[in-house]
Amino acid sequence: MHPPPALKPALDALAQAMDSRFDRLLAVPEDPRRRLYEAMRHATMDGGKRMRPLLTVAACDLFHVEKERALRVALAIECVHCYSLVHDDLPCMDDDDVRRGKPTVHKAFDEATAVLAGDALLTLAFEVLADEATHDDPRVRLELIQELARASGPAGMVGGQAMDLAAETSTFDLPTTTRLQQLKTGALLAACIEAGAIMGKAGADERQRLRAYAHDLGLAFQIADDLLDAEGSSARTGKAVAKDAAAGKATFVSLLGIERARQQADFLIDQAIGHLSGFGAKADLLRAIARFAIERDH
Amino acid sequence: MHPPPALKPALDALAQAMDSRFDRLLAVPEDPRRRLYEAMRHATMDGGKRMRPLLTVAACDLFHVEKERALRVALAIECVHCYSLVHDDLPCMDDDDVRRGKPTVHKAFDEATAVLAGDALLTLAFEVLADEATHDDPRVRLELIQELARASGPAGMVGGQAMDLAAETSTFDLPTTTRLQQLKTGALLAACIEAGAIMGKAGADERQRLRAYAHDLGLAFQIADDLLDAEGSSARTGKAVAKDAAAGKATFVSLLGIERARQQADFLIDQAIGHLSGFGAKADLLRAIARFAIERDH
Repeated sequence: MHPPPALKPALDALAQAMDSRFDRLLAVPEDPRRRLYEAMRHATMDGGKRMRPLLTVAACDLFHVEKERALRVALAIECVHCYSLVHDDLPCMDDDDVRRGKPTVHKAFDEATAVLAGDALLTLAFEVLADEATHDDPRVRLELIQELARASGPAGMVGGQAMDLAAETSTFDLPTTTRLQQLKTGALLAACIEAGAIMGKAGADERQRLRAYAHDLGLAFQIADDLLDAEGSSARTGKAVAKDAAAGKATFVSLLGIERARQQADFLIDQAIGHLSGFGAKADLLRAIARFAIERDH
Repeated sequence: MHPPPALKPALDALAQAMDSRFDRLLAVPEDPRRRLYEAMRHATMDGGKRMRPLLTVAACDLFHVEKERALRVALAIECVHCYSLVHDDLPCMDDDDVRRGKPTVHKAFDEATAVLAGDALLTLAFEVLADEATHDDPRVRLELIQELARASGPAGMVGGQAMDLAAETSTFDLPTTTRLQQLKTGALLAACIEAGAIMGKAGADERQRLRAYAHDLGLAFQIADDLLDAEGSSARTGKAVAKDAAAGKATFVSLLGIERARQQADFLIDQAIGHLSGFGAKADLLRAIARFAIERDH
C-alpha cells in the first residue's frame, strides 16, 4: 500500500529536501577521506521513508517555525537515525546485508568504514544543531542538543539497543518489551516532536499533549513494525523479515498475538490523534502521519 | 621513566577526579542495560594517562576557570577519547585484545556491546557539555560543542581514522602522514587547549598562541608515540607494539628515521613552549606537559 494521498506530496518534497541537504553536508573531499564520505552518503541519501524528518517538520509547522530551520533540525535527527542503522546492520549486531533494497554500508564498503561512518554521522548531528543557522536563540540550540543526546544515548536509543542484545539471552515480559521499544525506537521519534516544541517555544500544556501524542505514536509504530516483520515479505520491506521471531525475541506480536497487536496499534493511534484536538487544522499532517504509521508497509 | 615531579601530583589528582566523575556519570542501572553501562565503565575508569583531561584543566587554569567546570569539560573530551579507543580496538579496526594492560572492551564484553558503549560515550560527551553546570553562558557551551564536534568528526579524529584505513592500501608521503596524524590525534588534543580558551573567553591573540602550542604539541606527541612503537616493548606500553610498521604503514619514524624523528620532536616541543612565553608562570603546567609528552613511555 502507498501512503494516503495527503501524505504523499509532503513525503516526496521532504525526500528531495533531505537528499539535497545531505548532498551539501557530505560533499566528498579530494583526499583519503573520500571513502568515509561516500559511505556516509550511502547511509543517508536516497533512502528510507524519512519518517523522522517528516515528524520534525510537521511538529515545527504547528508553531510556524521557518522551513529552512525546521529542515536543519530534521537533518540532524536523520543523521542520528541513519548512524544507528549503519551500526545496527553490522555483523556483530543484526548482521544485515540489505537495507532499503541496497547493500548495507559494511557490505558496500567494509566494516571499519561502516563503524567510522556511523560515528561521523552521530558527531555531525550535534555540529548541525549547534550552528547558529539552526536558531537565533542559543538556549534553543542547547535544548535541542540536550534532547537529541538524551533520546539517542544510553538513556534512549542506545540503551534500547543494549536491551535488544540482552533479549537474545533472556525472555522479556510485556512491560520490559514495551520499555525496550520505547527506548530503541520511541525515544528518537519523540525527540522529533519535542524538537518542534523546542523550536517553537511551545507552552507547558502544548508540550504535554505533544509528548502524549509521540508516546502513543512510537508504540503503535513499533507494533506495526512487528506485524510487518511477522507478516511481511522481504520483497515488500526491502530487508530481511521475521528475524526477531527467528531469534526467539519477544515482540508485541509474539506476546499479544496478531489480532490483539493490531487492535492495540489501532487504539494507540486513535488515542494519539485525540491528544492533538487542541491544535485544530494545523495538526492535520501529524494526524495523517499517525494513520500512516500503522498502514505503511514499505 | 615516570612523569617529571611537577606533573606527578597533577596527574594523580586528575586520575582520581576523572574516576569519581565517571563513577557518577555512569551509575549502573538495575535493568537490562546493566552490561552496556559496565562496558562504558570498563572503557573509561581506572585507565590511561588522562593526558587530554590534564591538557584541558591546564588550559582552563590559565584563565582561572572554576575547577569543577574545567573537570566537566575534561570529562566530556575524555568520553570522546575513550569511545574512539573502544571502536579503534574492534576486530574490524585495529583488532587489539589489550589496552592499558586490561582486555579491550570487545574482549571483556562482546563486539556488539563495544560498538554501543562507544556510541553511548560519544553521545554523552555532548550531553555533558550542553548542561548548564558546564558554564553559565549558553554561547560558551555551544562553542565547546562545536569545537568538540569538529575536532572529533569527519573533519577531525574520525577523518584521521579513515585516512589511517586508507594508509593500509596506499603509501603516504610526509605531508599526508602529518595531515593524518593532525586529524587522528592532533585535533582532539588541540580541542582540549581550545576548550580552555573558550571557557576562559580568551582574546584573539591568546587563542592564536595557544593554537600554535597545541599544533606543535600534537605533532610531537605523535612522533613520540611512533618512537615508542618502534622501540618500546609491550610490557612497558601495556599494548601491542610495532603494529604500524608491521602493517607497512608510513610513520614519522619510517619516513624520517629514529634519529631525525627524535630531533623533530625535540624541536617541536621547544617551539611549543616558546609559544607560551606571554603567559608567564601560569603556563608552567602546560610547559611540563610538553616536556612530558616526548619523555613518557607508559
